[in-house]
Amino acid sequence: MFVETCIAPVNIALIKYWGKRHEELILPINDSLSVTLNTDEMCAKTTAAASASFKDNVMWLNGEKVPFEQNARLMRCVKELQQLATAKGKLKFPIEWKLHIASRNNFPTAAGLASSAAGYACLVYTLAQLYGVEKEELTTIARQGSGSACRSLHGGFVRWHMGTRNDGSDSIGSPVVSAEHWQDFHIIILVVNDSRKKTSSTSGMKRAVETSDLLTHRAQHCVPQRIAAVIDAIKNHDFPKLAEITMRDSNQFHAIALDTFPPCAYMNDVSHAIVDFVHAFNKEAGEIKLAYTFDAGPNACLFLLEKDVSAALAAIQNSFPNDAGDSVEYVKGIPIRCEPKEIDAFYNNGTLPKNDKNLFKYIIHTRIGTGPQRLDESKSLLNISNGLPLEN
Amino acid sequence: MFVETCIAPVNIALIKYWGKRHEELILPINDSLSVTLNTDEMCAKTTAAASASFKDNVMWLNGEKVPFEQNARLMRCVKELQQLATAKGKLKFPIEWKLHIASRNNFPTAAGLASSAAGYACLVYTLAQLYGVEKEELTTIARQGSGSACRSLHGGFVRWHMGTRNDGSDSIGSPVVSAEHWQDFHIIILVVNDSRKKTSSTSGMKRAVETSDLLTHRAQHCVPQRIAAVIDAIKNHDFPKLAEITMRDSNQFHAIALDTFPPCAYMNDVSHAIVDFVHAFNKEAGEIKLAYTFDAGPNACLFLLEKDVSAALAAIQNSFPNDAGDSVEYVKGIPIRCEPKEIDAFYNNGTLPKNDKNLFKYIIHTRIGTGPQRLDESKSLLNISNGLPLEN
Repeated sequence: MFVETCIAPVNIALIKYWGKRHEELILPINDSLSVTLNTDEMCAKTTAAASASFKDNVMWLNGEKVPFEQNARLMRCVKELQQLATAKGKLKFPIEWKLHIASRNNFPTAAGLASSAAGYACLVYTLAQLYGVEKEELTTIARQGSGSACRSLHGGFVRWHMGTRNDGSDSIGSPVVSAEHWQDFHIIILVVNDSRKKTSSTSGMKRAVETSDLLTHRAQHCVPQRIAAVIDAIKNHDFPKLAEITMRDSNQFHAIALDTFPPCAYMNDVSHAIVDFVHAFNKEAGEIKLAYTFDAGPNACLFLLEKDVSAALAAIQNSFPNDAGDSVEYVKGIPIRCEPKEIDAFYNNGTLPKNDKNLFKYIIHTRIGTGPQRLDESKSLLNISNGLPLEN
Repeated sequence: MFVETCIAPVNIALIKYWGKRHEELILPINDSLSVTLNTDEMCAKTTAAASASFKDNVMWLNGEKVPFEQNARLMRCVKELQQLATAKGKLKFPIEWKLHIASRNNFPTAAGLASSAAGYACLVYTLAQLYGVEKEELTTIARQGSGSACRSLHGGFVRWHMGTRNDGSDSIGSPVVSAEHWQDFHIIILVVNDSRKKTSSTSGMKRAVETSDLLTHRAQHCVPQRIAAVIDAIKNHDFPKLAEITMRDSNQFHAIALDTFPPCAYMNDVSHAIVDFVHAFNKEAGEIKLAYTFDAGPNACLFLLEKDVSAALAAIQNSFPNDAGDSVEYVKGIPIRCEPKEIDAFYNNGTLPKNDKNLFKYIIHTRIGTGPQRLDESKSLLNISNGLPLEN
């Protein structure tokens, strides 16, 4: 039996991907740009095994058996990697051997945090190790599993080039700068309590392409300028500029979702209260220290520099009080030391909006991170003697 | 003492006005189009008096004294009417005589329903009677009080032409068809409970002009097509077409508000629940029988034909249950007879979303209506012996 285990990071887009020009190949109508999150706090983990003894291709996702051969996107990724391996002629085992794949996210999928990007990036990266094609361009393969997965194959800031070719071979994820370039770039994720049923990203963006009169204007005229400007801001460590572009692009993405017919409202009243809070915080600070961005759901990702984390968290805790306080179950991830004077400064300051209690499920504090990593055998999700999932 | 009393209607835009090209003259960046509501259910009422004995210009709004000479928009309307009256030479009294003006809305201003449009239309129409210039083009004057007031000077469906002249003389409200053209056109207003502080229309649209990258595209490319298409739908009594254009334009207006920086979120979770309800209702009906439109606030205006009112209300009451039930305090305006079989049909039907209780303050049922009307002296808001407000 041959076994490989890897982890891959989550990424959060500063310039959003919304709208495909090719449904099957997952080719977008505009470039997008993301920051890769540290795998210490959030990651997908995959073990892939190949053996002559396996009767069928089987996959387990978070411990549950899921369709394999019936999953067209999954099969497309597997086939592409097998073709690449066959072409290279470096196979350690017959290509016909069946696969056992186990994958887990170390964060709740129910949180509505994009798990498919990390998941497909991890799957493709792990299979590439297994088939011995790890040095190849893998982002075009991961993209066909889940579009934004191509951005999770690199660390730091990553640009997904929309490309122009019909076969999608130039629609790739490529690093803008590595994580080392901006090590004090931090992220706070506010996971919002929500009950509303939402339209899936796939159908929401399909409907936007079909019905929004504003989407083409965004894709052709707004995004190219923003991509150039945000890359400039990243290279110059210009946080206020990056923050403003990020917030504007999040707003425009949700504007497009509303301009869709029927409309998609992904943000809810709590999301809008977070927006109001961030603008009030920045006004109070006298400069832009905090940026928000929202994906196809109500949760907020806040970007900020390490030096501002404790003040920002103190302000968040005062503006959005929670019975769980500073407990590690509520404030997950990198420990935050809120200086008492900072808490006091914001507590005594009446300019920040005061919201109802317990609007968030929990908070995750993380930072910029690197791309996928190969782990040793001891971290396997499959029992290496029989290829069945371990209880972890 | 010379006294005149008039009423003027509220109007609801199907194609929205959002963005000025001239702040003081209130010249818009696109045409807009509205339906005029019946004054039986909602109207502004104004009494204007001129007398040699009045020492100052004084105004009372809903019984409270408000600034007159300090209100630049009000003064601009008064001056323009005085100039017109002087030019015509038909004055019954010296132009120097001071004015007493009392104005009231017969609907709660707290409801967030556009009261300034009806208010300025009524003010201008009443002063025109007083100064004997009632046969003139008044919409350019009313427009300078509150942009959309120019649409409340006519009944039926009204188009506000943006115009091209710098002085605004061709930025007028003109009737598309009279109320008689489509007498069974009804409106249900859902007044939503809300606590969030919102940006005023004036500053929201100013900020949109300054910061939205999508607004110009909307104004130049989307609106002209929609104006033409909705006029076509009105002339052909094509309700489904009118309804779809109306919903799309409401969505696009709120998209632009979100694309503003900082963003303006005028709709709230209840508004979005109404949107979901309307789409579910139409899907269930198998055709578009109901349209929503939202102005710069969370309240919904629903358009529908008279024949569908009782079924729609039955569905609304089931999807948005309220402890007030069918009481006249809760369902105001034209009485609605919900047929028991219609209520049952929707009650037993699980396809419509079920929301929390008591999400609406109240519901108003009204219909298409005519323009401003002159009332007789018995309806005066001012005591005609001393020119002071009456208690009504």
